[in-house]
Amino acid sequence: MVTTPIDIVEPSKPNERARKMAIIDTDIHNDVPSDETLYRYLPDRWRRYHEMIGLRGFYGTSYPRASRNAARHDAWPPSGLPPGSDLGFVQSQLLDTWDIEYGVLNCLRAAGRQQNLEYGAALARALNEWQVEDWLEPEPRLRASMVVPYEDGDLAAEEIDRASQHPGFVQVLVTARTSEPLGRRRYWKLYEAAARNNLPVGIHFGGTGGRPLTGAGWPSHYLEDHAGMPQAFQAQVISLVCEGVFERFPELKIVLIEGGLAWIPPLAWRLDRSWERLREEVPYLSHPPSGYIRKHFWITTQPMEEPPQAKYFRQLLEQLDSNDRLLFATDYPHWDFDNPDRALPSHLPPPLRRRILADNARALYRFEA
Amino acid sequence: MVTTPIDIVEPSKPNERARKMAIIDTDIHNDVPSDETLYRYLPDRWRRYHEMIGLRGFYGTSYPRASRNAARHDAWPPSGLPPGSDLGFVQSQLLDTWDIEYGVLNCLRAAGRQQNLEYGAALARALNEWQVEDWLEPEPRLRASMVVPYEDGDLAAEEIDRASQHPGFVQVLVTARTSEPLGRRRYWKLYEAAARNNLPVGIHFGGTGGRPLTGAGWPSHYLEDHAGMPQAFQAQVISLVCEGVFERFPELKIVLIEGGLAWIPPLAWRLDRSWERLREEVPYLSHPPSGYIRKHFWITTQPMEEPPQAKYFRQLLEQLDSNDRLLFATDYPHWDFDNPDRALPSHLPPPLRRRILADNARALYRFEA
Repeated sequence: MVTTPIDIVEPSKPNERARKMAIIDTDIHNDVPSDETLYRYLPDRWRRYHEMIGLRGFYGTSYPRASRNAARHDAWPPSGLPPGSDLGFVQSQLLDTWDIEYGVLNCLRAAGRQQNLEYGAALARALNEWQVEDWLEPEPRLRASMVVPYEDGDLAAEEIDRASQHPGFVQVLVTARTSEPLGRRRYWKLYEAAARNNLPVGIHFGGTGGRPLTGAGWPSHYLEDHAGMPQAFQAQVISLVCEGVFERFPELKIVLIEGGLAWIPPLAWRLDRSWERLREEVPYLSHPPSGYIRKHFWITTQPMEEPPQAKYFRQLLEQLDSNDRLLFATDYPHWDFDNPDRALPSHLPPPLRRRILADNARALYRFEA
Repeated sequence: MVTTPIDIVEPSKPNERARKMAIIDTDIHNDVPSDETLYRYLPDRWRRYHEMIGLRGFYGTSYPRASRNAARHDAWPPSGLPPGSDLGFVQSQLLDTWDIEYGVLNCLRAAGRQQNLEYGAALARALNEWQVEDWLEPEPRLRASMVVPYEDGDLAAEEIDRASQHPGFVQVLVTARTSEPLGRRRYWKLYEAAARNNLPVGIHFGGTGGRPLTGAGWPSHYLEDHAGMPQAFQAQVISLVCEGVFERFPELKIVLIEGGLAWIPPLAWRLDRSWERLREEVPYLSHPPSGYIRKHFWITTQPMEEPPQAKYFRQLLEQLDSNDRLLFATDYPHWDFDNPDRALPSHLPPPLRRRILADNARALYRFEA
């Protein structure tokens, strides 16, 4: 039972009649008072599983034990606030420690995927106003993605136009799992508004479209969600290209956030080959799909695939042909945080390292040097 | 209206009363007599689309205009039978023309995905008996995958044990899109039976699990199904590894058919990295996921990704580290048939070409030389 003030009613005294008659209550809810109680009855293996993953039903989890608990252990600030919610601690633990020039906030509160669209729009607006007041105004090193009710084109466009009035917003945020593939018409007004306001659209790991992550149904493990999320990113890249979104919005830029990058060359090769044989189905495409991918997509580094040999990583970068569109990211304060000193392979040539660590992002988001 | 004998009833004469009273029939079905009638009203663009793709609802298509029409134009035999159904023509057009030593039949009739499981089992058995009689017995160069009701472990195992008595069956066939990811318990009896009978399990392009192909919902185009099918294959590889299927059935061999291959190294890298951090979730895995992939998976060549540079293809083969597990396939009689003379890149060293064209398959399926 969820106890909220609305549930509290004055208990009435039992009357005589009730005391004389048998009563059967056929709906009483009980619950374990805490995880610890549950753990007394759970085998060790599944107790550890609950601590690690939490509950994982037929919706998938974006992060083990929900977003807040998915943090690095040391990311809980002394203030007692949840990780990522205390500006002072973010400043000292992240921005100051690593001397970060600019940071882009991606608030993952699920305003964009509320079934009540007006409620989602209200949440998005509230979150953006809070971001301005508590993050962008007090800290000049921070910029933010705007949270939008992305499942409705009109509501999303309205919030994009409104929030764009603050220069601290540099991106529109959606998730990799949406109700429909992102190329479809329901999202076009979002792109129109993003292009009108010169904002890239960031597609971030996670989300819940109400459907399984895979084309073969619901997987059993969080590990499968984590390793399998590129499936959703692949669907989005294919959809955005095949629906002609970039013919319609030639200035639109897409940033793939936390989706990896090694799957992109194979996808482009296969898509080009399929397109050669099926191009009649998408006659509005003026050139092979790989050209759209190379021109319109930026990619963040966290988490980067780590090939077993340095040589394979160099091959990957060569095949990807996107040295000016790779963007460094830490994913702070999440558990799979990338340390800026160690995240990029040590064998990267310094000019490329410089581009990835800052220059590419500075150019994309038009940050002042 | 579908007219079947069961619908034919003797028309009764209208009676007086009916003639005097107004009659409103609120359920009468009409249909265009032929595609040509429809085409008189369809704009050219969509008439060509219908000719090319057919109807494509919220289930996805495995092949444009259903399987039979997806054939090469020249694969319709003079007998008037549908492509792939006339042994004599298959012998002359495929086996004799290319001097093929052995050919593995993969009959794609959808026995495995019937909602009525007993019906599916009966269909599978019928198809396998027909394959023995009309294909395996008359033509010694042919072998076949057995069709099985793969969504039920007991029924599938029963048919595997039964059909295995004929030496012409060399593989168990399932599709890339299943109701649940193939690592889950419902499929374990199928693997147990396959391992017991020394049969690899082939996972073929296509299928319909009742859910969209992508983690972001239903795509608009067949092109997106075709280029996006590796998403389903990725889910299956991840699931088979993460559920510990290969710890349980150490001899099990999986053949990925018509799913491409370039996505495999990136998937293995990401999966290894996720596993390093989340291995507690799958404690029965004795080593990194990439080890299972290298040991248990074979891959057919059609359709192979075609990187824009020969160098990238050589890099891919090196990263894949599977020269002894690549199997040539034509996909005859389908529209995207691979010509044995031209399908493999011309720069492949002859020993590797020999392996891919025949030696690897001979070893896997234990064909006599």
